[in-house]
Amino acid sequence: MAKVNSGFDKQIKVGLIGYGNVGKGVELAVEQNPDMVLEGIFTRRDPTIVTTRNPTSNVMHVSELEKQLDRIDVAVLCGGSATDLSEQGPKFASMFNTVDSFDTHAKIPEYFDSVDKAARKAGKTSIISTGWDPGLFSLLRVIEESTLPRGKSYTFWGPGVSQGHSNAIRRIKGVKYGIQYTIPIEDALEKVRLGENPDLTKRQMHQRVCYVVPENGADLKKIKQEIATMPNYFEPYDTEVNFISEKEMIEKHSEMPHGGFVLRSGVTGDNHKQLMELKLELYSNPEFTGSVMVAYARAAFRLNQEGQIGAKTVFDIPPVYLSIRSPEELRRKLL
Amino acid sequence: MAKVNSGFDKQIKVGLIGYGNVGKGVELAVEQNPDMVLEGIFTRRDPTIVTTRNPTSNVMHVSELEKQLDRIDVAVLCGGSATDLSEQGPKFASMFNTVDSFDTHAKIPEYFDSVDKAARKAGKTSIISTGWDPGLFSLLRVIEESTLPRGKSYTFWGPGVSQGHSNAIRRIKGVKYGIQYTIPIEDALEKVRLGENPDLTKRQMHQRVCYVVPENGADLKKIKQEIATMPNYFEPYDTEVNFISEKEMIEKHSEMPHGGFVLRSGVTGDNHKQLMELKLELYSNPEFTGSVMVAYARAAFRLNQEGQIGAKTVFDIPPVYLSIRSPEELRRKLL
Repeated sequence: MAKVNSGFDKQIKVGLIGYGNVGKGVELAVEQNPDMVLEGIFTRRDPTIVTTRNPTSNVMHVSELEKQLDRIDVAVLCGGSATDLSEQGPKFASMFNTVDSFDTHAKIPEYFDSVDKAARKAGKTSIISTGWDPGLFSLLRVIEESTLPRGKSYTFWGPGVSQGHSNAIRRIKGVKYGIQYTIPIEDALEKVRLGENPDLTKRQMHQRVCYVVPENGADLKKIKQEIATMPNYFEPYDTEVNFISEKEMIEKHSEMPHGGFVLRSGVTGDNHKQLMELKLELYSNPEFTGSVMVAYARAAFRLNQEGQIGAKTVFDIPPVYLSIRSPEELRRKLL
Repeated sequence: MAKVNSGFDKQIKVGLIGYGNVGKGVELAVEQNPDMVLEGIFTRRDPTIVTTRNPTSNVMHVSELEKQLDRIDVAVLCGGSATDLSEQGPKFASMFNTVDSFDTHAKIPEYFDSVDKAARKAGKTSIISTGWDPGLFSLLRVIEESTLPRGKSYTFWGPGVSQGHSNAIRRIKGVKYGIQYTIPIEDALEKVRLGENPDLTKRQMHQRVCYVVPENGADLKKIKQEIATMPNYFEPYDTEVNFISEKEMIEKHSEMPHGGFVLRSGVTGDNHKQLMELKLELYSNPEFTGSVMVAYARAAFRLNQEGQIGAKTVFDIPPVYLSIRSPEELRRKLL
């Protein structure tokens, strides 16, 4: 299914494993990159009942993957960190170059080691924990800290939908549908921007706003209470709970926007304040995540071509490997 | 002059060549990085009359450099692009690992080649065109374009002092002192942030605001006219000229703030808008430039230790090489 007139003799053949929201984002992102082609989507479901975003995409059962060893240059793993990736990461790293968005921060070192071992043994290259956080935000945290060593770093998330918090609401008895928006607190952001280097509690940095469709006859007061006091998820924050109709939920809360800010406020010389700030404003979180993963898929393929094997993170990737342009063109046009 | 209790057995020994504003920024930045030590400042002036920012810094004449071949791990070149670097870059790349902030965009390919040749021959590593633009802004342009291939990129500079434009004013007859601030036009920035992808002329993106101390009896109307019509520098922009006293110039315009914005507004999937924006707000441009150069000096040294020789740009440097922290620690704490 090579694209017509892509202008690239040898396109990078991408295999997509796991077809949820991020998988769909990856599918759409590959189309935007003429040096790549989507070789196939691999799913654990019955492929005949999967409707793809691009009607020409080729869907196969995940059990077909072993037959694709020579046909896929890089596999983009779109399973979730909680259950799929800890097993899939090392498994597929022993078969393909891979990219994933593993985001269970506490388990990253352990995951890195297991993927590294599998990839090295197979002579493959795996870039773990890509996307935007972990991913581009992590990258900025390192660049900002390295160029302003005397300073303080802050990451704010939102405004946007947190999947984890939305799922937590949905598990509460009496909740039919629920969605949670993480809202960065403007006042805290401003203090950071002014170079005040404040010490901020979780409550001072983010607010949580929930929209809930209750079941018929549910105890609204109890739902509200249960959300607000949920440990880790909501208890450390000021939480607003709004009850809405199913119609309103579908009309107003079907998108998955997100974003955030990575700031560092530092000082050089005689107390000269210096501020760095990256802002992302994403109208579709999974599509942007997919888009970032695809750029890192290009890097994984190229690194492997050069014999740089094993597990890598965004910290290890020279930015030149992300770009469709040649190093010469980048120096000429973007430096 | 190793720092006491730095905690680093082997500090990176930095030589600083050229002691202007950026040189002073580098001197101050080295102090913020405990894995580095400033071995010496090398100047073309008489070293005995140079007053350093840090009184313990060791100043030598540039002719002493050849005796320092074994004593300097990386030389930070702080000369200007216009005259010094095109000669100094390749010359010192044949003696030391180097970092510079070469910023004549049109000549970068040629400069890269000449430094590359010299560095390769000597087995050294040279990172050219670091700082923030070229430098960190370039990096963000590549990352933003690679992760949002369908979109449009914008760089806005300021608010801040442009050295080039200030110098241009000072060359006008009747001008005693002059300074120029580049001001990004808020309305244009907002259009970009809204995802309108406007086509913007120079005039629509930046305004130029000048403060001029005239010589006694100078023709103010003529100075104003000469500034406003100066080709390339001012003619394509709306320029405001303010005449002020010498006292006001010293009191209000002695700092060198700068900054700017690198934005990309893109689209994924079914027309979902995505916005990325890096903002820098620098109260001292030369100190921040020096600070970035020092992070890349660390990278140049490390790359050379690994045998990666030749000329490089910010596009070629894995971010992990910029950080004082170990790769393991970065993965654990910043990913």
